Amino acid sequence: MISGKTTLIAHIGYPTESFRAPFIYNPWFEERGIDAVVVPMGCKAEDYPAFLRSLFRLTNIRGALITMPHKVATVALLDAASPAVRIAGSCNAVLLRSDGRLAGDMFDGTGFTRGLERKGLRLAGARCLVVGAGGVGSAIVASLAAQGVSGITLFDVHRPSAESLAARVCEHYPSVAVEVGSNDPADYDLVVNATPLGMKPDDPLPFDVARLSPSTFVGEVVMKQEITPVLAAARERGCRVQVGTDMLFEMIPAYLEFFGFGTATPDELRAVAKVAY
Amino acid sequence: MISGKTTLIAHIGYPTESFRAPFIYNPWFEERGIDAVVVPMGCKAEDYPAFLRSLFRLTNIRGALITMPHKVATVALLDAASPAVRIAGSCNAVLLRSDGRLAGDMFDGTGFTRGLERKGLRLAGARCLVVGAGGVGSAIVASLAAQGVSGITLFDVHRPSAESLAARVCEHYPSVAVEVGSNDPADYDLVVNATPLGMKPDDPLPFDVARLSPSTFVGEVVMKQEITPVLAAARERGCRVQVGTDMLFEMIPAYLEFFGFGTATPDELRAVAKVAY
Repeated sequence: MISGKTTLIAHIGYPTESFRAPFIYNPWFEERGIDAVVVPMGCKAEDYPAFLRSLFRLTNIRGALITMPHKVATVALLDAASPAVRIAGSCNAVLLRSDGRLAGDMFDGTGFTRGLERKGLRLAGARCLVVGAGGVGSAIVASLAAQGVSGITLFDVHRPSAESLAARVCEHYPSVAVEVGSNDPADYDLVVNATPLGMKPDDPLPFDVARLSPSTFVGEVVMKQEITPVLAAARERGCRVQVGTDMLFEMIPAYLEFFGFGTATPDELRAVAKVAY
Repeated sequence: MISGKTTLIAHIGYPTESFRAPFIYNPWFEERGIDAVVVPMGCKAEDYPAFLRSLFRLTNIRGALITMPHKVATVALLDAASPAVRIAGSCNAVLLRSDGRLAGDMFDGTGFTRGLERKGLRLAGARCLVVGAGGVGSAIVASLAAQGVSGITLFDVHRPSAESLAARVCEHYPSVAVEVGSNDPADYDLVVNATPLGMKPDDPLPFDVARLSPSTFVGEVVMKQEITPVLAAARERGCRVQVGTDMLFEMIPAYLEFFGFGTATPDELRAVAKVAY
């Protein structure tokens, strides 16, 4: 029951029709007796900077979930940005700190790596290939680096994207060996599809699955279907896999912690979610 | 259940802790299957003009309930103001029209006169005394004039307030005889206490109740207690009365209609309200 004492979390993006976060966060807040509510706010790109500043002057707001098309624009509006934000160049979580300053973080990658660790993959020292150096790929790379992987190979069909991401990771995590290379998935502990390939039925595979070793863990960002072609092929070879929506449900506890609402497990969140995934 | 398709109605004021509208509107929306939600937004005076402009650029907002301290400041931010807004000099309802313009109205007085008419008082042609020419008094006077009363006598301890209100009414409703006079309640069809007198236990009465005729209807704006001293005295003399909260529950249907959410009766609203009045 929303009241004048309820803490607001804005969910900002455009269009809003397909927003799913309210169906997960709000039932969770209700179940846990947390007096907070996620409120979708449809904001076009040209209105966003002024709106965000104005919104965070409200006396009953604590934070915002940021989604398309504002993740990149948010970075310039922050007072404090996490390394993940600076590496990814995008931000999906904003917190109004008690001193009035806006802190930003980026949890796409956090959700991904939390999921891997929950499945028993030890990231410290792991050798990783990330295919796709766009927004979500950058976020995953930042989180892998933060978890202390030994090396990351980056591949992107647009090579300068991979090179620029490699440079940003080196700056923040000099102990991680980052290189731009090929998309050959042989001899890695972890291979990640961070491209949109798999969203359409006739997409080619993002890498040559025949070169996967059964000991390699394969992660996916595409959520359009649970088992994408690359995951199906990886499973056939005996690889352990992580599906796209795991990233989502692993990300939400990171948001809850960031906003100061305690935490939750992905299973607890899936149980209260009022929407099918 | 809030979703990305839900229409937002902002409830803007400061402080927000005592807001009661969400406890009435939101259960009503739920009961009627209307996909809308009233969201309290605590906004300080210095932030208000920029916030209001930014808020109404959102793609999923339809309107706002405006409360203290913003009712007067809102007038200057409107593209179109109702006569009630122009006479009262304040606005408590803002609608985003389909052409992007902001229309403002003021329903304090509407709530008051709707309540009188529901109780069988015929306002067309009525002779009225309104004691108190502040915000709520001005709104009531505007609404009485709109209902076609024949004459309104205004009294305020600060006489220039009454004079200025009289001038504004004359400008918009030249056929209504408005005069500034005494607070003697004899010989009126309707006498209104639009002062805060009655909020504190030792307040004097706003007018000499001994001069009330039993045929006079007495209305009250104070909501602190259901039967205020002036209402108790009027009842003793045989007068019909209207309590302060009637204005509130009669006002909400006017808001609902203004926002395009159909309408409701005060009794229906009181039945779903999740707060005691």
